[in-house]
Amino acid sequence: MKPMGAIPAGFGREEAILQVGGRPVDALISEAGGTPLFVYDLQLVERQIARFRAAFPGVKLHYAIKANPYGPLVTHVASLVDGLDVASGGELALALAAKVSPHHISFAGPGKRDAELEAAISAGVTINCESLGEAERGLRIGDLLRLRPRLAVRVNPDFEIRGSGMRMGGGAKPFGVDAEQVPALVRRIVEAGADWRGFHIFAGSQALSAEAIIESQRATLALAADLAGAVGQSPPVLNLGGGFGIPYFNNEQPVDVEHIGRELTRSLESRSELIANTIFAIELGRWLVGEAGVYLTRILDRKVSHGKTFLVTDGGMHHQLAASGNFGQVVRRNYPVAIANGMDQDATEEATIVGCLCTPLDRLAEDVMLPRAAVGDIVAVFMAGAYGLSASPQAFLAQEPAREILVGAAD
Amino acid sequence: MKPMGAIPAGFGREEAILQVGGRPVDALISEAGGTPLFVYDLQLVERQIARFRAAFPGVKLHYAIKANPYGPLVTHVASLVDGLDVASGGELALALAAKVSPHHISFAGPGKRDAELEAAISAGVTINCESLGEAERGLRIGDLLRLRPRLAVRVNPDFEIRGSGMRMGGGAKPFGVDAEQVPALVRRIVEAGADWRGFHIFAGSQALSAEAIIESQRATLALAADLAGAVGQSPPVLNLGGGFGIPYFNNEQPVDVEHIGRELTRSLESRSELIANTIFAIELGRWLVGEAGVYLTRILDRKVSHGKTFLVTDGGMHHQLAASGNFGQVVRRNYPVAIANGMDQDATEEATIVGCLCTPLDRLAEDVMLPRAAVGDIVAVFMAGAYGLSASPQAFLAQEPAREILVGAAD
Repeated sequence: MKPMGAIPAGFGREEAILQVGGRPVDALISEAGGTPLFVYDLQLVERQIARFRAAFPGVKLHYAIKANPYGPLVTHVASLVDGLDVASGGELALALAAKVSPHHISFAGPGKRDAELEAAISAGVTINCESLGEAERGLRIGDLLRLRPRLAVRVNPDFEIRGSGMRMGGGAKPFGVDAEQVPALVRRIVEAGADWRGFHIFAGSQALSAEAIIESQRATLALAADLAGAVGQSPPVLNLGGGFGIPYFNNEQPVDVEHIGRELTRSLESRSELIANTIFAIELGRWLVGEAGVYLTRILDRKVSHGKTFLVTDGGMHHQLAASGNFGQVVRRNYPVAIANGMDQDATEEATIVGCLCTPLDRLAEDVMLPRAAVGDIVAVFMAGAYGLSASPQAFLAQEPAREILVGAAD
Repeated sequence: MKPMGAIPAGFGREEAILQVGGRPVDALISEAGGTPLFVYDLQLVERQIARFRAAFPGVKLHYAIKANPYGPLVTHVASLVDGLDVASGGELALALAAKVSPHHISFAGPGKRDAELEAAISAGVTINCESLGEAERGLRIGDLLRLRPRLAVRVNPDFEIRGSGMRMGGGAKPFGVDAEQVPALVRRIVEAGADWRGFHIFAGSQALSAEAIIESQRATLALAADLAGAVGQSPPVLNLGGGFGIPYFNNEQPVDVEHIGRELTRSLESRSELIANTIFAIELGRWLVGEAGVYLTRILDRKVSHGKTFLVTDGGMHHQLAASGNFGQVVRRNYPVAIANGMDQDATEEATIVGCLCTPLDRLAEDVMLPRAAVGDIVAVFMAGAYGLSASPQAFLAQEPAREILVGAAD
């Protein structure tokens, strides 16, 4: 037997049936037209937004679309946060379609094409410049368009969030401009007549240690103040990055966001004069939406091979690559899963849940204890709201596409 | 510095420019309308088919569409091989669209939906049954349709190909029916009046050791004969699986297919009477098309961070997940890459090639020696013909789609 992660709070059940957003999953599946199905509960997203608001007074909240670009979700979340962060021209189009003011959109990511810079500058979106070369291209395109580009500088800090799942800073990185090159670049941007929007400093993601995030945020404030001093000008905006993780696996604990908020509030109260008038923002993706999503897939076959029980589903790694252990993980571990129409039953059987792809990589849960499940039963894979469908090889083996629905929206 | 795999044979150059199918890549990119671009050289596929034909006289050759489902490629390959193996209803539709006779199509893979079984039985395609339950569903659907289903039994062998990249057999598996349950299942299929088509025994894939494949094929023949004896009937067809790997990484050697062919020919000459009249087939995907594909992506930015050079391209893991090290690999290693417009230059610079996605997972080559490359240069990632675009998270970060073209086709 192998352990699995804990099912996140916020999901109910009525008798045997899992509920998402207060509605039974069998009804949701009928409404959506079948499985595989991603259900996103907007109320759980709103819960996270409310937690953030309470914990981080005065700090702007941005949503990083890359975590989940599902249109109806983006539109709702956009109305509840202060800005959107996009990572491509395609995401920029999504953000603009969600009727977000261009001044509340920033565009980060290495390898921006000229056409993407053009689209961003034309729209009045802030570009987080990832390199000297990209900044020069932005300035040149601004000249050509006779528009004043809004340019922030993404800084590659000399530190990272300790223990983060994805290291975005610390040492040589494809992201951002090394700190020592930043003052000259900002002066260049200002002298060229562009609208310098400040700094973007992103030190890591999927961190579960509040202390590590607190330390990173303190270092970020200190670095921003140093850079402001070197530049001789205050950054209008400091995007502190994000990095708040969610607990996917056994023995992982939720990050203590309230503790981070208290410490950041304290740090901001005593911040340097050099960043006294700066607007602070935190950009979050995974933490806002990751726990709000459930992937539902139906059992098509139940078979026993050499004494081991396999539940074969109509979903798989083509929709939930991360749950299969093939998205940045070195060791495969189990996401939380459940038999969604057997929530009232005890876990009496050890089973392995696989997808319908003809590859041994396609495992949704390995050697987990579950209620005895049969063909037709519904498997729920939790923690499916971020880096799920859009981060998976959907065309692999020409399988059926997944459906997506949003529940818990007021309108 | 880290090593990379060897560039496969069959690619030329004219002056500085890489040629695929005898044509310079810059012209191919213009023709296709830009980068990122997958180019598949049909001549290299034909070379592999010819090698197979010479090495395996009398053995049928099947193409496993899942390796590369690009329509024009499938259509051409289908005309050169003896059958197609599909792994979903979607791939079945592709195979039928390629005008392949249904009797030369077999459908394997766990988790077949009823609608997929129906489509296969209606078309007259052979279903490789992955479990007792699936076989029963096939029989029931045949009854309902008043059609005689063509059913083969996929056997989960008690052995695997030693050292194969993906283990498909040996121990408890979601694929196939455990060998000891097979005779009863075949009898059930025959007694129910279905058209029993034989066995499918697939013991592993991406194996580079000829000896391991030879051993596995011998074991497969022995198992098939044993099963035929237990059933009391000869299998019309024995699909021996595939498993021939290709050398992606440094120090890997191509598999000696001619050696395998000689040994299989010898084994077949002395085979059991129980499989004397059986038709033998080998299904190959990766080995046929993997080396024939090149992924071309343009350098958008060149930056130095803490002394390390990054080449940022307009492609990435959303098109070539496997090259980024996130598709079943435990340790990331470098695929062969080149600067496709600098083929006449010496490798004088250590660089890391990243994609345009805003994630540290997006690396196409790490710390490799290359000619000095500049913005606008073209990066070629080789070994991109199998499990490339279709096995990658194409929608991730809403980036531009990749283009695909086939070269070297006679018509």
